[in-house]
Amino acid sequence: MYKIDLNSDMGESFGNFKIGNDEEIIKYITATNVACGYHAGDPMVMDKVCRLAKEYGVAVGAHPGYPDLMGFGRRRMKLSHDEAKNYVKYQLGALDAFVKSYGLTLHHVAPHGAMGNQCQDEEDLALAVVEAIEEYNKDLIVYYCAGAVLGDIAEAHGLRTACEIFADRAYMDDLSLVPRKMEGSMITDEDVAIKRCIRMVKEGKVTSINGKELDIKGDTLCVHGDGAKALAFVEKIRKAFVEEGVEICAFE
Amino acid sequence: MYKIDLNSDMGESFGNFKIGNDEEIIKYITATNVACGYHAGDPMVMDKVCRLAKEYGVAVGAHPGYPDLMGFGRRRMKLSHDEAKNYVKYQLGALDAFVKSYGLTLHHVAPHGAMGNQCQDEEDLALAVVEAIEEYNKDLIVYYCAGAVLGDIAEAHGLRTACEIFADRAYMDDLSLVPRKMEGSMITDEDVAIKRCIRMVKEGKVTSINGKELDIKGDTLCVHGDGAKALAFVEKIRKAFVEEGVEICAFE
Amino acid sequence: MYKIDLNSDMGESFGNFKIGNDEEIIKYITATNVACGYHAGDPMVMDKVCRLAKEYGVAVGAHPGYPDLMGFGRRRMKLSHDEAKNYVKYQLGALDAFVKSYGLTLHHVAPHGAMGNQCQDEEDLALAVVEAIEEYNKDLIVYYCAGAVLGDIAEAHGLRTACEIFADRAYMDDLSLVPRKMEGSMITDEDVAIKRCIRMVKEGKVTSINGKELDIKGDTLCVHGDGAKALAFVEKIRKAFVEEGVEICAFE
Amino acid sequence: MYKIDLNSDMGESFGNFKIGNDEEIIKYITATNVACGYHAGDPMVMDKVCRLAKEYGVAVGAHPGYPDLMGFGRRRMKLSHDEAKNYVKYQLGALDAFVKSYGLTLHHVAPHGAMGNQCQDEEDLALAVVEAIEEYNKDLIVYYCAGAVLGDIAEAHGLRTACEIFADRAYMDDLSLVPRKMEGSMITDEDVAIKRCIRMVKEGKVTSINGKELDIKGDTLCVHGDGAKALAFVEKIRKAFVEEGVEICAFE
Repeated sequence: MYKIDLNSDMGESFGNFKIGNDEEIIKYITATNVACGYHAGDPMVMDKVCRLAKEYGVAVGAHPGYPDLMGFGRRRMKLSHDEAKNYVKYQLGALDAFVKSYGLTLHHVAPHGAMGNQCQDEEDLALAVVEAIEEYNKDLIVYYCAGAVLGDIAEAHGLRTACEIFADRAYMDDLSLVPRKMEGSMITDEDVAIKRCIRMVKEGKVTSINGKELDIKGDTLCVHGDGAKALAFVEKIRKAFVEEGVEICAFE
Repeated sequence: MYKIDLNSDMGESFGNFKIGNDEEIIKYITATNVACGYHAGDPMVMDKVCRLAKEYGVAVGAHPGYPDLMGFGRRRMKLSHDEAKNYVKYQLGALDAFVKSYGLTLHHVAPHGAMGNQCQDEEDLALAVVEAIEEYNKDLIVYYCAGAVLGDIAEAHGLRTACEIFADRAYMDDLSLVPRKMEGSMITDEDVAIKRCIRMVKEGKVTSINGKELDIKGDTLCVHGDGAKALAFVEKIRKAFVEEGVEICAFE
Repeated sequence: MYKIDLNSDMGESFGNFKIGNDEEIIKYITATNVACGYHAGDPMVMDKVCRLAKEYGVAVGAHPGYPDLMGFGRRRMKLSHDEAKNYVKYQLGALDAFVKSYGLTLHHVAPHGAMGNQCQDEEDLALAVVEAIEEYNKDLIVYYCAGAVLGDIAEAHGLRTACEIFADRAYMDDLSLVPRKMEGSMITDEDVAIKRCIRMVKEGKVTSINGKELDIKGDTLCVHGDGAKALAFVEKIRKAFVEEGVEICAFE
Repeated sequence: MYKIDLNSDMGESFGNFKIGNDEEIIKYITATNVACGYHAGDPMVMDKVCRLAKEYGVAVGAHPGYPDLMGFGRRRMKLSHDEAKNYVKYQLGALDAFVKSYGLTLHHVAPHGAMGNQCQDEEDLALAVVEAIEEYNKDLIVYYCAGAVLGDIAEAHGLRTACEIFADRAYMDDLSLVPRKMEGSMITDEDVAIKRCIRMVKEGKVTSINGKELDIKGDTLCVHGDGAKALAFVEKIRKAFVEEGVEICAFE
């Protein structure tokens, strides 16, 4: 039996600043990555997303990021090992306060933005993230991008992991995402994108931008919630998964 | 058997900015109120204080404050009920992440600065604080200043409470602290201060600045950790309590 | 000859967080109040608004607010006199850096949100704002809401002032705005709103929510830029002013 | 006639968080680099430092840094060109508001911490800093560390520059500072340090850690103000300069 988890970033608003369409996207997904107040998110929206997650039966994960609200956590920073570890731990606990208030259990951790990108190949940062998680709660699942050293380190530490794939992005030969500026980085044809996803999930294979066949683990698919088009795509890919016999459920 | 808890605010540093003398004061107290990153404190110092608390067997409490780092949480703000509740909850969870990492259990909550002051007579704010605590963890003890509506509301909600007293401050007739600008607000004679504390703990009485005899519950005494003089005073008052048969231990 | 200045708040985005429709509203106004990085705004959007203002010949004013990004500067805070003064001065200079870079001259200052509201009746705060302005640049025009003590103090200090009126808000007998929660606070009929504005500008009169005739100075009208409806209203009121012989130009 | 400017970082406090000894170090220096609220500093301390600078006749420069208060601007970040340019411009204007209020003229710009370090060899960042300065005020002097590409770019843009040297630091062969972790990075013998400084100023020469003779321009010397020892050293080096016929004055 094949399975796929559909995850989406949520809770990215901050005070009067609104981002995303949390009330809608929540209806289509099985897991949400919630911003924790460092790169985005505030206690009001964290509370709201947890309430929505309870209502729709969606698994709540933490989406910790760099302390860079002005840059939305998308700018590379060079933290020390202990800074990275403690910043992640702080954000895990902060989100967990809302998760617990709704009688839920924190499900996973998915580093955001530049922190996530740097976890692709910076071992020390990835180790810091893993240590934060294992010291806080060994039951949390680590969501990592295909090819990331974060996945390897998490597994070496005995944590459960889920490999995240993207429907609309092309892959380099080392499984890293093709940078957005490069030609061919985006998979714009929806049907092609959907077929790629199904192949990643059922066959564990994807073709790189250079035509190379790569092994990939499709555990959880990142879906976007901004705009009517994104929501329509999520509906379409859900339907395709079901038709292909792929069960849609939170990663376990 | 008489008992007194000695508490002190700690973890008030922020990045390169250092405040206090946490490594020293921890040796003399039974409970610490730890800043949680809003008015002061950052994940590095929160981690450090929890490590020290474990080493010295000190109970760790949260010291949540307003999101006003530039004002150290000492400036009155007017938050909505839900903002106050969620801001407190966020801070409880953030600190708890470090508490749990050291195998400790979060012990109490003591609102900081202007939030604490406004909990003296603003029912809606006090209720928001109480709701945050009861939704997060009903076992947490609420530290309130003598006379504060926070204590009444916490008790009405079935939470355990500890009444905080001050050695160096005079009281108004309603048990609120005499404002620092008023003459006679500070008890500067150490021996007088110590006698007052012992009377508050053993007799449950204190004389107001106007000479009125007031009932007071002396559960936990706030001690300061800045400077050699403060540390010497803590040693002195500890000794006096012991001689008077007052056990020094974290509030239970 | 009658004149009216049309002003609008702009530059309220922050990093990845977008607010407003600056590129459109700029086409309809004569003066813009630009957020300066405390309650909203960042250097990127401040630069952009100044570039737009130059392109469209719009006067640039500072819109300083409280250091409360999470509350968008809308929550009452209690700053000391010197804090308020220096916080305003900081924001004036910061915005002026962009104004000067485009060869423009800073035109006015209009306190934002809770700071603006508290300038209605808190003399000490209003004085702090006025002192910041006069120490920084005596040529700046102070935009104050009708009835505000800020206007009186600014004039007493020899600063030029412009009285700001609102098309969609009802007035109390003391010229303060009817709180949004009260019935009748909003003037929802556009034609009524426009007639009120023209009367304020040409006759200097407005009828309070209690039916009292009040003297009012209509120097500058605050217009909103969010949404198609707001833009359509601005077009409509511009046309009405022109038909009534009211010149639309920045306050001088 | 030989000249040396003595500069020191000041205004690094933030709200209740105190750093440095501004009231004392100001007496010994000719130029101050003032933090502008991003990595450190707030409007209260910026005002205070400008007042002190006026009292002691010290030239005021801006010390812009990254928007990373928690990291004191010492952590490498990757900003876009326009972000870097606008962030610097914002900080220049903010400080200038206080400079002007005291009737002073902003004198120079010296990038702080990681921004300063990255201006050593990152051309795009250095260009962004230079553009911010030239668009804001072409009369500002650019303080750069010996060997930094910032100096070259500033000069290519027609800006005046001052080369900053350090008394207590050893140099690599390319004039960059020996990293603190390397052995021999610090010049701990005060007499040796002073002789090196005098040679840098009078002969324009310094010996690298590898024994190589390097050309260096000693325009301005960075002195530290923390602690009694630092102040004593400044007094000592001032005396040595005077005895060697080196005039101590702000760079012109």
